[in-house]
Amino acid sequence: MGRCIGTRSIQFEHPVAIRSWATVAGRKEASGKLKRQFDFILEDNIFGEKSWERAEQKMQQYAIELAMEKASLYGHQLDYFLGGDLLNQIIATSYTARNIGAPYFGLYGACSSLVEGMILASCLLDGGFGRRAAVCTSSHHDAAERQLRYPTEMGVQRTLSAQWTVTGSGAYILDQEAGNWYITGAVPGRVIDRGIKNSSDMGSAMAASAVDTISAWLEDMHDLDTLDYIITGDLGKIGYEICRQQLTERGFDIAGKYYDCGMQLYHAEDQDVHAGGSGCGCSAVVLGAKYLPLMAEKQHSRLLLVGTGALLSPLTVQQGQTIPGIAHAVLIEYHQEGSGC
Amino acid sequence: MGRCIGTRSIQFEHPVAIRSWATVAGRKEASGKLKRQFDFILEDNIFGEKSWERAEQKMQQYAIELAMEKASLYGHQLDYFLGGDLLNQIIATSYTARNIGAPYFGLYGACSSLVEGMILASCLLDGGFGRRAAVCTSSHHDAAERQLRYPTEMGVQRTLSAQWTVTGSGAYILDQEAGNWYITGAVPGRVIDRGIKNSSDMGSAMAASAVDTISAWLEDMHDLDTLDYIITGDLGKIGYEICRQQLTERGFDIAGKYYDCGMQLYHAEDQDVHAGGSGCGCSAVVLGAKYLPLMAEKQHSRLLLVGTGALLSPLTVQQGQTIPGIAHAVLIEYHQEGSGC
Repeated sequence: MGRCIGTRSIQFEHPVAIRSWATVAGRKEASGKLKRQFDFILEDNIFGEKSWERAEQKMQQYAIELAMEKASLYGHQLDYFLGGDLLNQIIATSYTARNIGAPYFGLYGACSSLVEGMILASCLLDGGFGRRAAVCTSSHHDAAERQLRYPTEMGVQRTLSAQWTVTGSGAYILDQEAGNWYITGAVPGRVIDRGIKNSSDMGSAMAASAVDTISAWLEDMHDLDTLDYIITGDLGKIGYEICRQQLTERGFDIAGKYYDCGMQLYHAEDQDVHAGGSGCGCSAVVLGAKYLPLMAEKQHSRLLLVGTGALLSPLTVQQGQTIPGIAHAVLIEYHQEGSGC
Repeated sequence: MGRCIGTRSIQFEHPVAIRSWATVAGRKEASGKLKRQFDFILEDNIFGEKSWERAEQKMQQYAIELAMEKASLYGHQLDYFLGGDLLNQIIATSYTARNIGAPYFGLYGACSSLVEGMILASCLLDGGFGRRAAVCTSSHHDAAERQLRYPTEMGVQRTLSAQWTVTGSGAYILDQEAGNWYITGAVPGRVIDRGIKNSSDMGSAMAASAVDTISAWLEDMHDLDTLDYIITGDLGKIGYEICRQQLTERGFDIAGKYYDCGMQLYHAEDQDVHAGGSGCGCSAVVLGAKYLPLMAEKQHSRLLLVGTGALLSPLTVQQGQTIPGIAHAVLIEYHQEGSGC
């Protein structure tokens, strides 16, 4: 049974192990800073399918199957599957859930869905409602752009504040059994709306929620000194700068600890991604390909992962409404074999 | 801490009370079988707003505020808000979450979202992660039809297998404190796909999941004799008949106990709704306006509420793919004052 600390932070009584994970990424993603650190790299964005949407579902399927293979698990050994994506009706995830066959909770938190799923899965396992859960999210550049902005074939010029929706998927197997990486705490996010209406400036729409969630954690737990990393999902250059500045103004010395997954994936200058990467796939692949391995370089390390989501609806933006944002966080701790949790 | 029973049923250690609820419905809905049993009835479907989507969000706002008023609660007293709707990016719910300000988990389970939210909220409260949560869902006929099928102004002739998306919203406040109605158990749903491709025959797409979930509960708990009601969300006439027949074939004697919310709302013959009501708002208003009050007519009664969802994506249906279904269930028990839970 978990404990609620302070305003809205959660500390798990029985921390949940991240038993295995897998990442699948597109060619453009594999040509970036993380090079070939992904478990599987697509030849091209269509991935042998008839549509980008089918290609997105196939990425999820690969990610979750690879993650299960690493943990020597079969679908029927999963008590829950939680996930989401950016397609309307999160249809890629629904098809994946059908193929896996485990009890399924479909989530929509835009690009915060990975961490939303990690929080709910950890609560389910810590609460005794099961032993093992998979969390998987994805995004696909071309499928997302044609649904949320313009079809990529139109060649519409992108503004400098725009981010590049990542083609990628990450799957994580959470388990009550022992491991090296653990989810030990969480902060569920609140929806915050700063009145942004520009669907090509998601960083500004999400930054305030990230500040709200990170501040809540730091004020509840007073553990900034022992945190090795604070990682936001996909604020990009603009959102990162707003978040960094506002946290500093609130008195949090985050220098040298704070990074954004959206800025860790591509070579910003050479790859024409403008403000950085974004999408449900962004934090999903960067966490698994970069940060979890990085955590293992120390005997014990602590990382606050903050999934950021712009709850953008093209329809209501056309109707003159604003884009609300949300940020969910989990605390991940790494302990070298034998050093305990 | 909860207990897992049998294959995938959950029994809550500390059953969660349904402390209050409220229902908001359209005029057509209020002209049906339940007449004026709703807490608030719209004058018309536009509800004083500029668009149907804004009207849908306003319905949610009314539902949740009325439910909180009945429980003498304010937004800051909610530890969690869970919900969803049928609009792309569940945008109505995101705006409601923004206005309420509580930590928010956005869900997409199509018309099963109410029960998906009730399961997750019950796990959060039983697991000790909070004391109070609100669950709210909605659907709006005109907003849903123009997004998922045809704009209603087109006057496209509806097939006889089509259901009528309900204009309505229901909000439920779950609380660790004592009450009369309790959520005492649950079955999380699996995605099942019978190859249906007709977006005007949701009943057939969902029936198999309902059978799967109800059978799982009955096989795990062996409590059919003491169940007063088994209520599916929105299978409509066609799905109801498939579900009834398949449950009977599996040896479950559900005669006189099994009803579908989609068939309890409208006068099918006079109101031109063909196979019955559907949508996230269907079970949300029928549960609160009809079944929870009905449960109070006995000293102790037990109801299995089965939220059914057709995970329909117009895009992937156009791409030749099928419509998967899901069904989540909760067991609700009523105890007259003093008779205990």
